Amino acid sequence: MPAPTGVGTEELRRANLRAILQTVHTHGPTTRAVLTKQLGLNRSTIGALTGELQSLGLVTEQTAVVGGRGRPSHLVVPSEGNVVVAVDVGVDRIAVALVGLGGEVLDRRTRGHQRGEHDVAHVVESVAQMIEETLAQSRHHRCLGVGVAVPGAVRAADGLVRFAPNLGWVEEPFTAMLAARLDRPVATANDANLGVLAEHIRGAAMGYSEVAYLSASVGIGGGFLIDGRPLTGARGYAGEVGHMQVDSHGMICRCGSVGCWEMKVGENVLLMRAGRLSGGGPTAVAEVIAAAQSGEARAAEAVDHVADWCGVGIRAIVNLFNPEVVVLGGCLAQVWRAAETRVNIAIQRGQLISPRNETLIRSAQLGDDSPLIGAAELAFGPVLDHPQAVPQAV
Amino acid sequence: MPAPTGVGTEELRRANLRAILQTVHTHGPTTRAVLTKQLGLNRSTIGALTGELQSLGLVTEQTAVVGGRGRPSHLVVPSEGNVVVAVDVGVDRIAVALVGLGGEVLDRRTRGHQRGEHDVAHVVESVAQMIEETLAQSRHHRCLGVGVAVPGAVRAADGLVRFAPNLGWVEEPFTAMLAARLDRPVATANDANLGVLAEHIRGAAMGYSEVAYLSASVGIGGGFLIDGRPLTGARGYAGEVGHMQVDSHGMICRCGSVGCWEMKVGENVLLMRAGRLSGGGPTAVAEVIAAAQSGEARAAEAVDHVADWCGVGIRAIVNLFNPEVVVLGGCLAQVWRAAETRVNIAIQRGQLISPRNETLIRSAQLGDDSPLIGAAELAFGPVLDHPQAVPQAV
Repeated sequence: MPAPTGVGTEELRRANLRAILQTVHTHGPTTRAVLTKQLGLNRSTIGALTGELQSLGLVTEQTAVVGGRGRPSHLVVPSEGNVVVAVDVGVDRIAVALVGLGGEVLDRRTRGHQRGEHDVAHVVESVAQMIEETLAQSRHHRCLGVGVAVPGAVRAADGLVRFAPNLGWVEEPFTAMLAARLDRPVATANDANLGVLAEHIRGAAMGYSEVAYLSASVGIGGGFLIDGRPLTGARGYAGEVGHMQVDSHGMICRCGSVGCWEMKVGENVLLMRAGRLSGGGPTAVAEVIAAAQSGEARAAEAVDHVADWCGVGIRAIVNLFNPEVVVLGGCLAQVWRAAETRVNIAIQRGQLISPRNETLIRSAQLGDDSPLIGAAELAFGPVLDHPQAVPQAV
Repeated sequence: MPAPTGVGTEELRRANLRAILQTVHTHGPTTRAVLTKQLGLNRSTIGALTGELQSLGLVTEQTAVVGGRGRPSHLVVPSEGNVVVAVDVGVDRIAVALVGLGGEVLDRRTRGHQRGEHDVAHVVESVAQMIEETLAQSRHHRCLGVGVAVPGAVRAADGLVRFAPNLGWVEEPFTAMLAARLDRPVATANDANLGVLAEHIRGAAMGYSEVAYLSASVGIGGGFLIDGRPLTGARGYAGEVGHMQVDSHGMICRCGSVGCWEMKVGENVLLMRAGRLSGGGPTAVAEVIAAAQSGEARAAEAVDHVADWCGVGIRAIVNLFNPEVVVLGGCLAQVWRAAETRVNIAIQRGQLISPRNETLIRSAQLGDDSPLIGAAELAFGPVLDHPQAVPQAV
């Protein structure tokens, strides 16, 4: 490692602007006094920096009396005028949200779509229309970016969707198509990779740096933080947990193999095993769980079965990653809340290397919105990294 | 992120000493001219730094004419007087090596041990005796440390061996016991975590930063580099690949479960399936492979069977980590070399998210010595990190 080269005034200024903006975006309104302490800079430097962020239209300053006996302190607040558009392309529905700097969801709309409507051009058009509707309602805002979560492996370099079996996509240039249709830059990433980011910043994984996020709907997505940083792998495809072979028997998976984990614990597996039609989503899953709790034998058997297989997969993930916390989303969270004891027994049926009491397992705090909130964070990324480069036009 | 605080002269000096020492340790003798270029410092500063390393006894300088037409350049060479002791505690044998700064193995001894001899006190005594014999032969050397590889999950904080099923160890304070017996500090880590380190520094993973190392003997160990850094997890237990459930049938594993990956691809699985006695190690595995290649049906069936299951596990790892390179050691390397095509077919039988041609799969270049060489690197760690803290006594 060569010696550090000099950090010039400009880089320092950028680093300090970034630190202030990230703090108010993540933690909300913050006093200058707290910022002064956190950054280890003097009051006048902080004042100059917040002044620059204010002139960039990114923060406003309010006067507030904090505590009660001190003198009033300036409160630095994320400016309301800045938004991003976040999109979550699910298998059953598309969700689009307008999210403000600071993380508040200002507007949110969803549209159902079905298996026959997964053609990539069709999805691009649906998403684009929803985004246009959203932005039309928010003319007084400055849109800083568009972030999209998709249930598949996304190439980091250009957002190509390498493989999204539950949409039927292979090597689809979804990101480039949407960017061309909107005439705006678009950033796309895997839904679970965005889910873990959102849970880390604003949810069940706050304060942890070794995190596994596992979320099931039709398929299962996995997103991981290693030492506080997202696991991407060489090209951005890391975290594919759904096609781990956990059995050598069972139904053929969409991927062509048998015994994949997502053929054991997805929504439709639970529904069909309980004698319901597949495709009913979280609501139908909740109905089966309620029926199981009311004593319906077939529903109970289905929940038990899925709980057992949840445990098998979670055990593998804990042994591979030794996380501090495992955050469960979607159907996995529903089953965990309904059958925590049974999942725990299944986890400990095989060898768990880390002592069970050293690994937290909890439901996603943002519920099914983790990928959507993560997509907003993806869109905020460039401005949070380089506040001075914020676009000045709408 | 707060602004960088000032880097004082002492920290800068330490960073530069570290950079020079790591360069000559990893890449061998290096001219001052190359160091000057690499570190971006001027010639006189480099001269002062190499002078300090020389006075610490860590490097020597030789005059060499490089190229042919230039003026002679000083060649900075790792000093021969510095060694570490590296230990690899296997299930069948213990290996102890004396390794010089620069990575040369100066002395190497092994001792077989059997299942009845795995009692931790017995292993500590055997290892200690072998270390004493090794050090007795090297009185003119300065021993910088002792590093140990064990086939189990090791708690990073204190080297407690949390779980080493093939030694029968659970929560064994092996490291503390060996340190007390030797009256020296001892550093212990999982054998596969050290294997990936060695292959990264001196083997098949040089130049790659997303690496999966999978090595099978009786069990299977996994070691990973994520963005060039070792994957440890919260406590140091990450990388346990052997107990991933890949089947719901089969023999009971030592861990108490069924269908673990290491019950499908370990040495003894191959041997027993080929009608041989278990416990013969790599030599017996090589015999089965040779018999398979000579047309012995039962041996061929065993190799095919293990090759298929190698593919199942490698596919899961590639989907989870999206590595640039998968390095195979032990029995996995033997089967890979004998049945590469069959392993590849098995890998691609299920969905491989990353295109197959973007993931290299290769045998460990250091052979079965990867963990031993990694243990040496573990022992060199403190001196490489802080050259000025090198102990001056033997």
